[in-house]
Amino acid sequence: MTDHHSKNSDEQRPLTHASLTAFVIGLFNDTMPFNTLLGLDVVDGDTGIELHVEWKQELTGNPLKGILHGGVTATMLDTIGGLVAITETIKHTDESQLSDLKVRLPTMGTVDMRVDYLRPGRGARFIATATVIRKGSKLVVCRMELHNEKGDHIAFGTGTYMLG
Amino acid sequence: MTDHHSKNSDEQRPLTHASLTAFVIGLFNDTMPFNTLLGLDVVDGDTGIELHVEWKQELTGNPLKGILHGGVTATMLDTIGGLVAITETIKHTDESQLSDLKVRLPTMGTVDMRVDYLRPGRGARFIATATVIRKGSKLVVCRMELHNEKGDHIAFGTGTYMLG
Amino acid sequence: MTDHHSKNSDEQRPLTHASLTAFVIGLFNDTMPFNTLLGLDVVDGDTGIELHVEWKQELTGNPLKGILHGGVTATMLDTIGGLVAITETIKHTDESQLSDLKVRLPTMGTVDMRVDYLRPGRGARFIATATVIRKGSKLVVCRMELHNEKGDHIAFGTGTYMLG
Amino acid sequence: MTDHHSKNSDEQRPLTHASLTAFVIGLFNDTMPFNTLLGLDVVDGDTGIELHVEWKQELTGNPLKGILHGGVTATMLDTIGGLVAITETIKHTDESQLSDLKVRLPTMGTVDMRVDYLRPGRGARFIATATVIRKGSKLVVCRMELHNEKGDHIAFGTGTYMLG
Repeated sequence: MTDHHSKNSDEQRPLTHASLTAFVIGLFNDTMPFNTLLGLDVVDGDTGIELHVEWKQELTGNPLKGILHGGVTATMLDTIGGLVAITETIKHTDESQLSDLKVRLPTMGTVDMRVDYLRPGRGARFIATATVIRKGSKLVVCRMELHNEKGDHIAFGTGTYMLG
Repeated sequence: MTDHHSKNSDEQRPLTHASLTAFVIGLFNDTMPFNTLLGLDVVDGDTGIELHVEWKQELTGNPLKGILHGGVTATMLDTIGGLVAITETIKHTDESQLSDLKVRLPTMGTVDMRVDYLRPGRGARFIATATVIRKGSKLVVCRMELHNEKGDHIAFGTGTYMLG
Repeated sequence: MTDHHSKNSDEQRPLTHASLTAFVIGLFNDTMPFNTLLGLDVVDGDTGIELHVEWKQELTGNPLKGILHGGVTATMLDTIGGLVAITETIKHTDESQLSDLKVRLPTMGTVDMRVDYLRPGRGARFIATATVIRKGSKLVVCRMELHNEKGDHIAFGTGTYMLG
Repeated sequence: MTDHHSKNSDEQRPLTHASLTAFVIGLFNDTMPFNTLLGLDVVDGDTGIELHVEWKQELTGNPLKGILHGGVTATMLDTIGGLVAITETIKHTDESQLSDLKVRLPTMGTVDMRVDYLRPGRGARFIATATVIRKGSKLVVCRMELHNEKGDHIAFGTGTYMLG
């Protein structure tokens, strides 16, 4: 942030949809302590952006059963919903407006979320995905899903996000 | 679990409301790895059972802002809702039925949850509380709240829990 | 109900999946006063059971705009979710258990519901559909959708239903 | 709207908090066809604005049980939440900004709503109330309740409303 040299080179390269999306994915992957604590990993999957986590004992609610804690499920759904709300907003923003959007990113927040737990969170890896169902200039609503590596459907979510 | 001696003494001392409640609080405090990872602490507060957590960098979503990650909020609301659903069910169960209830405890799970984020999660300590709003033999619905140590109201939740 | 003759013929014809489903659709179409007030109509569509309503002035929230009142949307989503929760339960019930299920039908009720309003309810006809996402012996969770006759997607819903 | 005379007299009398609130209550009471169909009545109660309805057969889901249809409950909660979202926004708006707010009123809409059904809707009269839990310039979140005339608590709601 205080490196003048890199600031200058930033100014020389105008933002593109791809570079701002990559910047946002980097924020989620590298700078969010709770995402790091859980081991969340943003992956550019076949059908879009996905959020992955490998099963580990620390993420379970019950040591005997080895089932994902419901809070991990909620965290993954909230996180992928917020991330896709941003990347879809980037996609639909004119390139000339991207630097304005970048400035507003820190105001983005979850307004509310519903989680539906469908079956116990058993698996070796868990994959969260999201789709935008309502997109306004300030408000984005997403539906989210969590599956395990075998494709078992573990949870649904619906989240309302605001970009201030 | 495999200690025959303690098993025998368990059989000699029949379950009471107080002993089963203490057993459940112990489960949440000592045996749930994700609760330990986050530093969640069940406390018997003035107005009932509370779930506390001290702020720490690992629980934040953004290192610059120091605000609680929305997933921590969701985890705390889900956890206190489930815990109070159980302890209130214990309270309303005839003492002669408590050992049956204890056997059914591992089937308890969240069906669905809504979280309303009211303001950024700033504070030194966070306190989650819950109240039962619907109580059936199989299904319990709770409303949950998260405040910081100054009493600022950070989030509301509503959760539907099933006891199989 | 007091007609001994028809009671006898009921006893002679055992329930089938088709006859119990038809009975339930009849209940929703012919005996529920609020459904009649709104003009709701259960239709056996291409992809399953649908709930239809024709636009009329009485269903609008604002006489100048002619947009469906949000309460009509919520009513349709709740109704189709409950109906599909029952018909899917019938489908997965052994024929020998159908008369037990019929006795339990009046205990069926909505536990909770979320509605997401996606766009203004404009159209000449509105069609609500539902899919079961979680099915237990006591608890069924559905996702519901409302479209207009052109296929515009007006609302999403998620409902949790209990069969006592 | 096309009456020049009343338009002129409107221009002469500047809006006050009381007059704009009365105008909005009038809209809900007199100009919304679905509210009229159900018999909804906005009442200025002891603790704030309330929405009342008298029981009548047409509002029931089951003619034998005489219980309020879940869609009536959802409609009442959505309506009182939206109404209180507006009247609280009026209360916190500077008098000089009220005419701007009046122009934006038609853009107000429900983004999402959760309803928790606590017990069967039995009673002679039903009363819906709402409280604002989050208030921003564009977005208001309310919690709503439905009771019968004896004070039995029938349903809870949570609604997110946007003022465009």
